[in-house]
Amino acid sequence: MKVDEALDLIAEIPDFPEPGILFRDLTPLFGDPAAFATVIDALGDVVGPDADVLAAVEARGFVLAAAVGYARGLGVALVRKPGKLPSVAARVDYALEYGTATLELPEGSLRAGQRVAVVDDVLATGGTVEATAKLVEGAGARVSGVAVVLELAALGGRARLAGLPVTALRTC
Amino acid sequence: MKVDEALDLIAEIPDFPEPGILFRDLTPLFGDPAAFATVIDALGDVVGPDADVLAAVEARGFVLAAAVGYARGLGVALVRKPGKLPSVAARVDYALEYGTATLELPEGSLRAGQRVAVVDDVLATGGTVEATAKLVEGAGARVSGVAVVLELAALGGRARLAGLPVTALRTC
Repeated sequence: MKVDEALDLIAEIPDFPEPGILFRDLTPLFGDPAAFATVIDALGDVVGPDADVLAAVEARGFVLAAAVGYARGLGVALVRKPGKLPSVAARVDYALEYGTATLELPEGSLRAGQRVAVVDDVLATGGTVEATAKLVEGAGARVSGVAVVLELAALGGRARLAGLPVTALRTC
Repeated sequence: MKVDEALDLIAEIPDFPEPGILFRDLTPLFGDPAAFATVIDALGDVVGPDADVLAAVEARGFVLAAAVGYARGLGVALVRKPGKLPSVAARVDYALEYGTATLELPEGSLRAGQRVAVVDDVLATGGTVEATAKLVEGAGARVSGVAVVLELAALGGRARLAGLPVTALRTC
């Protein structure tokens, strides 16, 4: 299956979770074996040989990063919402497209000097990835790249992440 | 790497998230490429050829099920915590080891007649898997099996799920 064909399965839901937000729903893509494998392989190509470990952002990022990690022989560091971790290495509060949020990095999940590829579903304002990059850098590691399925260009995430190599499978 | 060697990476954290609970932390396992691949392959062997699709329970189940889905060429249906889905096919409230919870199945993620393997990290009281099974059955599909990394036998999950084939990589 071609990547574009797989991405065409993504549904657009108006006014979710807030009025004025066009929600991208990857549910149909995850449910289609060929589309899922195609997208995972494409993200794996983006990650390439320059990453030692993947950062997976809760929760949809877990789906993508875990499969890419398996496909590429890499481990996965889970970047989690608050209250889930018994031992927190670092915490970052940030603003997102709708509302605010906090992300936490588990103790011991990244080592100094590691090259970390961030894998997520949608790049919107870039707040989530920026927060993840702060957690990565706080652990003494560095972000080798950012691989997302969709980039919502109008929301300016790429500019906010200036200096990080961002690759989206589709920009809209 | 042997499965037991991979499972030995799981950390035990006393009194999290509540006093008296011994939390099993899979963070070190997810972060080790060889251990992660070993566990995913072992779960894939458990799922076997009898599943058409995997059910992934938010959030750690996403990590495992997504990678198993990729490894076995299967799609993944995300079973989600409330408020995340634009379109909910069914919702189940249930009690868990500590507190209560709700799970939701996205519209369109399962089809009638599909054989669904549930993949999750830990089988404790069985409440989460039981709730997931209700969602699967409500969609007209059926649970072909339950594959977990750890089973906490003293909590009686297997008895609660009588009738479902449950396989754990390790029982403790």
